[in-house]
Amino acid sequence: MVYLTRRERFNAAHKLWVAEWSEEENFRVFGRCANKNWHGHNFELFVTVKGEPDPVTGFIINVKELGAIVREVITERVDHTNLNLDVDFIPKDVQPTIENLVMIFWRELEPHLRKRGVQLHCIKLVETENIYAEYFGPGG
Amino acid sequence: MVYLTRRERFNAAHKLWVAEWSEEENFRVFGRCANKNWHGHNFELFVTVKGEPDPVTGFIINVKELGAIVREVITERVDHTNLNLDVDFIPKDVQPTIENLVMIFWRELEPHLRKRGVQLHCIKLVETENIYAEYFGPGG
Amino acid sequence: MVYLTRRERFNAAHKLWVAEWSEEENFRVFGRCANKNWHGHNFELFVTVKGEPDPVTGFIINVKELGAIVREVITERVDHTNLNLDVDFIPKDVQPTIENLVMIFWRELEPHLRKRGVQLHCIKLVETENIYAEYFGPGG
Amino acid sequence: MVYLTRRERFNAAHKLWVAEWSEEENFRVFGRCANKNWHGHNFELFVTVKGEPDPVTGFIINVKELGAIVREVITERVDHTNLNLDVDFIPKDVQPTIENLVMIFWRELEPHLRKRGVQLHCIKLVETENIYAEYFGPGG
Amino acid sequence: MVYLTRRERFNAAHKLWVAEWSEEENFRVFGRCANKNWHGHNFELFVTVKGEPDPVTGFIINVKELGAIVREVITERVDHTNLNLDVDFIPKDVQPTIENLVMIFWRELEPHLRKRGVQLHCIKLVETENIYAEYFGPGG
Amino acid sequence: MVYLTRRERFNAAHKLWVAEWSEEENFRVFGRCANKNWHGHNFELFVTVKGEPDPVTGFIINVKELGAIVREVITERVDHTNLNLDVDFIPKDVQPTIENLVMIFWRELEPHLRKRGVQLHCIKLVETENIYAEYFGPGG
Repeated sequence: MVYLTRRERFNAAHKLWVAEWSEEENFRVFGRCANKNWHGHNFELFVTVKGEPDPVTGFIINVKELGAIVREVITERVDHTNLNLDVDFIPKDVQPTIENLVMIFWRELEPHLRKRGVQLHCIKLVETENIYAEYFGPGG
Repeated sequence: MVYLTRRERFNAAHKLWVAEWSEEENFRVFGRCANKNWHGHNFELFVTVKGEPDPVTGFIINVKELGAIVREVITERVDHTNLNLDVDFIPKDVQPTIENLVMIFWRELEPHLRKRGVQLHCIKLVETENIYAEYFGPGG
Repeated sequence: MVYLTRRERFNAAHKLWVAEWSEEENFRVFGRCANKNWHGHNFELFVTVKGEPDPVTGFIINVKELGAIVREVITERVDHTNLNLDVDFIPKDVQPTIENLVMIFWRELEPHLRKRGVQLHCIKLVETENIYAEYFGPGG
Repeated sequence: MVYLTRRERFNAAHKLWVAEWSEEENFRVFGRCANKNWHGHNFELFVTVKGEPDPVTGFIINVKELGAIVREVITERVDHTNLNLDVDFIPKDVQPTIENLVMIFWRELEPHLRKRGVQLHCIKLVETENIYAEYFGPGG
Repeated sequence: MVYLTRRERFNAAHKLWVAEWSEEENFRVFGRCANKNWHGHNFELFVTVKGEPDPVTGFIINVKELGAIVREVITERVDHTNLNLDVDFIPKDVQPTIENLVMIFWRELEPHLRKRGVQLHCIKLVETENIYAEYFGPGG
Repeated sequence: MVYLTRRERFNAAHKLWVAEWSEEENFRVFGRCANKNWHGHNFELFVTVKGEPDPVTGFIINVKELGAIVREVITERVDHTNLNLDVDFIPKDVQPTIENLVMIFWRELEPHLRKRGVQLHCIKLVETENIYAEYFGPGG
């Protein structure tokens, strides 16, 4: 098995806010991340697939095709959006934390890669230079 | 003259939108940056001062004090905010582009540094790994 | 399982030196790292925890709280210190190599995270842009 | 077990081209990577070994020795070369993709580390800031 | 004046070789950079323009348009090429060193930016993490 | 004029301490940087020279030769040292702040480059990812 990773990027706004809680409770738990008028990040998304390189092309998957799939299925749909309001595949009642986003992105992306004959290994999402989350799938 | 630079960071939402223009015109000019529900970035702010190092301490200014001033005067007031709506010193009728922000940050920060006896040399603001703006003051 | 990583930083002096060895032997094995008057590094510490995101907050642990724990338990106690002399939880007869430090940091940090209900997954310590060590615990 | 990683770098030319295919077919599959007169990259090679730190030195292996082995066995032989034409241990009928190179580098490097009493864990090869491959050995 | 910088990237092969010199002389002066079968790099190109931000849009130039111009005029024409052989605007009798390339790129790009009403300030070309060149124009 | 920059790195210990001051005063001014048993950093040194590229070689100076000079004159003499105690060309009564070090490095390096026919333009010294100093010479 060889592992191949492609990075794509997107810039988005979000906030962390539980509708059932008071404003005070939201600020106590989420701090500045609960700012009413949102804040935002440059997100870096690393998608890792695994497989045997093709004996002729040397590719697990052409990394340009991998990039095109990731952009079409994920980053084009979240780039320059509000992650709480604008993205159809992010449930409205789920906090857009990076822990939740890596699972949501996996569910969205995995079928497209499987259909293409490629095994998804890891979704990594970097929120700042100090924070990132990783997900290796439902069995991971 | 020696130049000393301090980096601080903040995460914020913004959009580019001219109220006098139609939606169509805004999207034609600003593209996705006009997304109604905002988007956001991890901004990196580099503040450069210049001067002669103190013969005893070897400091132009204690870089920790410089960081504290930049945080108090700028980054604490813009971090986890919406740059269009939430920041009192960013005029509401000015687009929060990095070109405008470096001038606005200069005007806000320079008096505090001058009062402290330090000469501001440059404000650099990095919006993504591919884009940044710099300002060297009204005479620069 | 989702994995969440927090980076913290510290700057410290150290040297590699076996008291039982001659100066010649120390320099033969450790080279310049045996410099009598120490040398130092900017260390980057990556702490990875794992768990199920909370269904309400979307957090494994609030990443700010994770950062606060790492700073209180580790980085505040090693930052701007001499790792051979100044840190009570680094045994005096153990070389402060990054291989040893990741195990020492694990032992120090793991109980605090377990008490908090969080499972530590990995300690990664970066010494220079070319060198880092990782530890996944006693069973890893 | 502790994991220790060393980064080395090399700059090389290559192209992706299947001799049995027409020019049209090569460009359809490989795109610009099939450019007749080559293109090139700054490659970053991360070599990870694992083991128990020596109780006296605190080393799995002296990281400088690890760097010297990686340079002698791999990077000195590929740096400033053409990966298709110039490197004796890269088979001429194998595409120099990063997926193939991580396996080829493993086969070349692993015996040298085993002879030295060190267990190779991972070969990671970064081609651009957006693309990398990893290999954990024949059983990985 | 505000300065705005856009980064674009390209990957290319080249070699340093003076046709009038012997092979021995070429290797004496250029070392491994004279490798007959080429080597290559990931180049990073930073283009800095200067001007007054437009009072309505806040732009010196829309940074996406700036990127499009740089890609059309420079990086699309050098990406995945051989800088010695494939690029019409790089003279065949000039060494493709970064010192020469920043001047060649300036000559190629400046008229396009001037025609667009934008003043070019600096071309910076990064060859490796350790080496870069900058050019501020014929009067710089 | 073209500007060419070479990066070299060194790791060193230092502390900030004015012998004439009390311990209390030292800690008040320098904070943790006054730690008795030192602390340390990974320093990055960027040396920029300027000139006209040679019409035959395309070099201002062969960047490998520039690196060799910087290593011989500066980094080999400060790497893995204590900047307060071990380096003959750093005066003992001068604080080893980066503001002072860029001037000291300039004085040490400039004659070697001038003798070699190369004009030194800038010394930049990066202490952490958040702090750096620059010096453009006595007239700069």
